[in-house]
Amino acid sequence: MSTLAKSPLMGQMMSRPLLISTVIQHADRYFGDTEIVSRRVEGDLHRYKYRDCHRRARRMANALAGLSVEMGDRVGTLAWNGYRHLELYYAISGSGAVMHTVNPRLHPEQIAYIVNHAEDQYLFFDLTFMALVEAFAPYCRTVKGFVLMAGRDRMPKDSTLPNLLCYEDLVDAAGEDYAWPEFDENAASSLCYTSGTTGNPKGALYSHRSTLLHSYATVMPDALNLSARDVVMPVVPMFHVNAWGLPYSAPLTGAKLVFPGPALDGKSLYELMENEKVTFSAGVPTVWLGLLTHAGQQGRGFSTFRRTVIGGSACPPAMMDAFRHRYGVEVIHAWGMTEMSPVGTACTLRAHHLDLPEDARQAVLSTQGHPIFGIDLKIVDDDGDELPWDGKARGDLLVRGPWVAHGYFRGEGGDVLRDGWFPTGDVATMTPDGYMRITDRSKDVIKSGGEWIGSIDLENIAMAHPAVQQAACIGVHHPKWDERPLLVVQKKPGADVSKEDLLRFYDGKIAKWWTPDDVVFVAALPIGATGKLLKNKLREEFAHYVLPTA
Amino acid sequence: MSTLAKSPLMGQMMSRPLLISTVIQHADRYFGDTEIVSRRVEGDLHRYKYRDCHRRARRMANALAGLSVEMGDRVGTLAWNGYRHLELYYAISGSGAVMHTVNPRLHPEQIAYIVNHAEDQYLFFDLTFMALVEAFAPYCRTVKGFVLMAGRDRMPKDSTLPNLLCYEDLVDAAGEDYAWPEFDENAASSLCYTSGTTGNPKGALYSHRSTLLHSYATVMPDALNLSARDVVMPVVPMFHVNAWGLPYSAPLTGAKLVFPGPALDGKSLYELMENEKVTFSAGVPTVWLGLLTHAGQQGRGFSTFRRTVIGGSACPPAMMDAFRHRYGVEVIHAWGMTEMSPVGTACTLRAHHLDLPEDARQAVLSTQGHPIFGIDLKIVDDDGDELPWDGKARGDLLVRGPWVAHGYFRGEGGDVLRDGWFPTGDVATMTPDGYMRITDRSKDVIKSGGEWIGSIDLENIAMAHPAVQQAACIGVHHPKWDERPLLVVQKKPGADVSKEDLLRFYDGKIAKWWTPDDVVFVAALPIGATGKLLKNKLREEFAHYVLPTA
Repeated sequence: MSTLAKSPLMGQMMSRPLLISTVIQHADRYFGDTEIVSRRVEGDLHRYKYRDCHRRARRMANALAGLSVEMGDRVGTLAWNGYRHLELYYAISGSGAVMHTVNPRLHPEQIAYIVNHAEDQYLFFDLTFMALVEAFAPYCRTVKGFVLMAGRDRMPKDSTLPNLLCYEDLVDAAGEDYAWPEFDENAASSLCYTSGTTGNPKGALYSHRSTLLHSYATVMPDALNLSARDVVMPVVPMFHVNAWGLPYSAPLTGAKLVFPGPALDGKSLYELMENEKVTFSAGVPTVWLGLLTHAGQQGRGFSTFRRTVIGGSACPPAMMDAFRHRYGVEVIHAWGMTEMSPVGTACTLRAHHLDLPEDARQAVLSTQGHPIFGIDLKIVDDDGDELPWDGKARGDLLVRGPWVAHGYFRGEGGDVLRDGWFPTGDVATMTPDGYMRITDRSKDVIKSGGEWIGSIDLENIAMAHPAVQQAACIGVHHPKWDERPLLVVQKKPGADVSKEDLLRFYDGKIAKWWTPDDVVFVAALPIGATGKLLKNKLREEFAHYVLPTA
Repeated sequence: MSTLAKSPLMGQMMSRPLLISTVIQHADRYFGDTEIVSRRVEGDLHRYKYRDCHRRARRMANALAGLSVEMGDRVGTLAWNGYRHLELYYAISGSGAVMHTVNPRLHPEQIAYIVNHAEDQYLFFDLTFMALVEAFAPYCRTVKGFVLMAGRDRMPKDSTLPNLLCYEDLVDAAGEDYAWPEFDENAASSLCYTSGTTGNPKGALYSHRSTLLHSYATVMPDALNLSARDVVMPVVPMFHVNAWGLPYSAPLTGAKLVFPGPALDGKSLYELMENEKVTFSAGVPTVWLGLLTHAGQQGRGFSTFRRTVIGGSACPPAMMDAFRHRYGVEVIHAWGMTEMSPVGTACTLRAHHLDLPEDARQAVLSTQGHPIFGIDLKIVDDDGDELPWDGKARGDLLVRGPWVAHGYFRGEGGDVLRDGWFPTGDVATMTPDGYMRITDRSKDVIKSGGEWIGSIDLENIAMAHPAVQQAACIGVHHPKWDERPLLVVQKKPGADVSKEDLLRFYDGKIAKWWTPDDVVFVAALPIGATGKLLKNKLREEFAHYVLPTA
């Protein structure tokens, strides 16, 4: 794009801002009788319809006004995926305040930091998190009240929380007449902090416009492909980058919503999916391990489950294979990040792939795919020069688009853009036909003798071994090569494999010099609050590890 | 929506305007090797790729700058669906000028009126229209040059046209380095005049924003459902409301494009579809008649054709039935208008319809469906009060949304909105679950004894009769009932049916008093420039018709 010019002639189309409140109004009006089913913290299943959700969201919007929550104020939530959380998504953002979803898996100190940094005015939380909230509440400097997302009967007799309110009391006391305000579509709508594996968490501040454009783009056939015939179960948490936008995109399309609440074990997920006829789900690879293990142990398949989006981390090929070939579930490999709302790319086939042999098609589907329209991306070298799309050149991945952050809340991290592009911190290759493959996080790349070794490739091979539950590959110091790969492995329960056998497993699958120099078996790999492997923890732990080749 | 408020807190997402130039850039970058195939006026097939289209669009943008075309200037086209027309879509709008597609089927006087009203600076035209352009050119007051969309070898030796330029010369002489300008997304991008069956044609002036939002919305699974695996043939002309957005939505998704050029007869369409493996097409009912007749005569089916969108007029159930049951082609019934960019609704099933018996599902699919997200609609009575969604109440259909016009170019028609809603001029019912059915154009409704009779229902029944090619039903004067329905019928070639048999065909299909009072057989029904039945012409013709019941 060159100069910014002003057109002397404006189009004559209605000026209608892109606002989150229009989503729930559309769902009510055109899909009012479509169900939302939620596994509650209380253990039971709750069922109601989009029109009920809209009615209660309007009541909650009135209640927020009664609590003096104003345009732009941040309101925090610590909650599972469920109907009350969905109501808050619309009540808070729709009324012009900012929905701040907090990850309850973070350390209480980190939560207090985030709540203070966001200057949350109120904090809504599920019963599960009562003790957690009591633990960090004394450190919250801006919270005027805590709202327990439950009925009067669940309110504790005594609590250390100052100004503890009851969600259902607020809803009951408020009227259902509420006119959603109209305002600038660039107004802040929601706030989500990065997991902060290094340094303090930083907040991505979404706008109504960015949220709606992201919704339009993710619904498309070559992204999540959502329709009014789908039954959508967001397993990815609503506190994890807005459950990849599903709380917006499902109502927008009229899909039935099924919320698993806190029951994320394989058995609970499986039964809910079967009972509610789930067709589509979304989650990180770690959560699917439990589901696949349960289905495998029971020797049962899926009756209605047809598509799953897997993102958050690269999906191990063995998992893709199990979904696709054992269960007939289409896996859509996606990639994104908190700073991208989060979806940036999704992998689907193009027409010329349809006649390829099965393994060639699977190779395409193992990439992270194309950017969805609105997102542009490029790979660059250290000087910022664009690298060729030859499927080989690895470079820093930069992105831009109307749902990409240009900075962090309250200026944290300073200027983050490089010439108008957001540096993702990922390293990727591009195929000549525009498919992107993440080869590593830039900080996870193993630098051996001046060459790069991709840790993800090495992990994927290990995870294809039948005895391996999960694997991580990190670079450790080597006197001659600077760094060499060390494979850290968590075995499957009851399974066994020797170090030598596992290293032999790499033969012929990869360049000889990429083979890890050593293997260490551990009881469990460190997993972060969003389900990702914490490689920085592993690097700390093995900082002084001496390789046998050293 | 209530008061317009200003948020004190803006989101921190990149400011990226929604511009038409981003579509062709995306197509080039991620689907650069996908083909565009065009049947040319010259008769042959032309093939190239998105990256070639982008390159030549950049050259043409440079050429336009060389011709001193500036931001906001209107540039007219009189052209079939083809690659040069597509290049102009991007070159003109992308460079900030306004793409004005003119319907060559209009009367030359009307064309001159439109070109003068739009103040077109240049006029691009296909070889087909040389004589037409020469006929109206003397009346054009603003056109500085006429560009023949052909190579040097096709340029006429002599022409009455002043400043006649050659398209390929312009492309060849221009450089391919061109940086698409960045400007306000609300800038005018394209101009399309309504067919003007009453009064002078009026221009709908689209913006880049409205065009891109319309593209996102129409690509969704419950609208046109376009993907990178599709081969899209727009049969609906690019001069007819931008071929329903396909010149934008197909490149956006990476679908292969197939343009039929001027060859719209059944045989040509059929052969092109088979040879190029077309999966998706779009057009008005009249054009499909020829295709279905040809396929029927040949006794052949479709190898790859899977979905068609039918709009422009209500699709006769008999045509839907032939596509669905004889050929296995899914029919997506859509509705919209020039003032809506044009798509407003599309009909697809919801989850709860999937288990219905076949005829109940077909009944749902015969409606015009749900508004696509972004569009809201309502039906109102004469006082503007909203009518119930009971499937029975018929009212004036009003719409609003970011791709709906708020007025016409140069203020024609004055204030057209009613309380912020656009009155469509259609009469419709709404089902309780939000499906809209057009029952008539408000001016076509037959008012019999104070009650309304829907002309479309009566026409659909007639067209289900095997001897009927096309039927129109109009109200004619009746001394007692004010108006009574008269059926005007064009028989299929070689087929026959008597007046009495045709009227008996209504028995049991409709309330007795709705049955037409008389039938008139005509050689051909009057069809307008966009393929629609011209009922106002029929009403003029039969203004003094005396019904046998009078």
